[in-house]
Amino acid sequence: MPHINLPSEFPGIRSLFMFRPETAAPLNHLVQTLLHDPHPSLSAGERELIATYISSLNTCKYCTTIHGAIAKHQLGNNAEIVSSVIADPETAPISDKLKALLKIAAKVQSGGKNVTPADVELARNVGATDVDIHDTVLIAAAFCMYNRYVDGLATWQPDNAELYDKMGEQRAREGYLTPPPKVTDMNLTETA
Amino acid sequence: MPHINLPSEFPGIRSLFMFRPETAAPLNHLVQTLLHDPHPSLSAGERELIATYISSLNTCKYCTTIHGAIAKHQLGNNAEIVSSVIADPETAPISDKLKALLKIAAKVQSGGKNVTPADVELARNVGATDVDIHDTVLIAAAFCMYNRYVDGLATWQPDNAELYDKMGEQRAREGYLTPPPKVTDMNLTETA
Repeated sequence: MPHINLPSEFPGIRSLFMFRPETAAPLNHLVQTLLHDPHPSLSAGERELIATYISSLNTCKYCTTIHGAIAKHQLGNNAEIVSSVIADPETAPISDKLKALLKIAAKVQSGGKNVTPADVELARNVGATDVDIHDTVLIAAAFCMYNRYVDGLATWQPDNAELYDKMGEQRAREGYLTPPPKVTDMNLTETA
Repeated sequence: MPHINLPSEFPGIRSLFMFRPETAAPLNHLVQTLLHDPHPSLSAGERELIATYISSLNTCKYCTTIHGAIAKHQLGNNAEIVSSVIADPETAPISDKLKALLKIAAKVQSGGKNVTPADVELARNVGATDVDIHDTVLIAAAFCMYNRYVDGLATWQPDNAELYDKMGEQRAREGYLTPPPKVTDMNLTETA
């Protein structure tokens, strides 16, 4: 049960956005800029994989599952790439640049000071730009916020795979700025 | 030395905001809403104390010092209350409600799942509302982001006490939405 009185028709962070629209606006603007808007060198799918990986390190079920579903839809319906990044980025079928960026992201998750010049050098040597490194650090840091927000208020995090897949398909297509439907309006065949 | 090429006239997060204005906009909007805008029951000084305390737990020198300076100016130039909260909230000269909220904030810093129904119950028993609990969790989570962002890119974090005090006085008065001056334009008597 959530720690505060949240609207029951919305899971995870969506219930918090309904509860406090004043903070929902900048939080949605931030994730839209970091993950969905056009980027000079990282695809939306690659950025969603960073968000998914950090959420899995923080063991946040809602964020790992929804961003994993968005990543899947951004990457041509490829669920395999998402599960392999969660299991071990080093052996996942991704570029050397993304592997180096995920290494930096994991350091940020454990504490900002853990990122070393050698981690950054490694990423540069496989093609990462200053903007790639900046955005990777900020995506990792931002998901250390979103994950703590979702878990710290004990939001409802359903088990229904169909629910996450439908939400993920919508977010991959539309981005983060359109209002979410109530779960009861989503025409699910599984029970939420 | 910062991990990426940042403008040298601005310390800490200010250099990152100059580097990437696209993400600076929602990050400034979020902190303005959480810490400076009018709140139904927590003063700006109390909210700055939560931000300062979390930054100290994350050992982020820049954020601890600047938000400590802002808190001091929001609390009638009271530096003692800031240092005592950093040292130990339980013995600091603050309300029982703020003590209970700082306890929740510290749990969020260590991981969102660590917040228990008993922590929330304790806060309610000394007058905390749902909005107080929500905002405390989000301030703590947000500073887990800002701290990792500032340290994860190894930004310049000067030692100059006068610099932080002047920046703190300005932010306490104006909020977070006005552009910061270059350090060289701040008429400091100490060397930055």
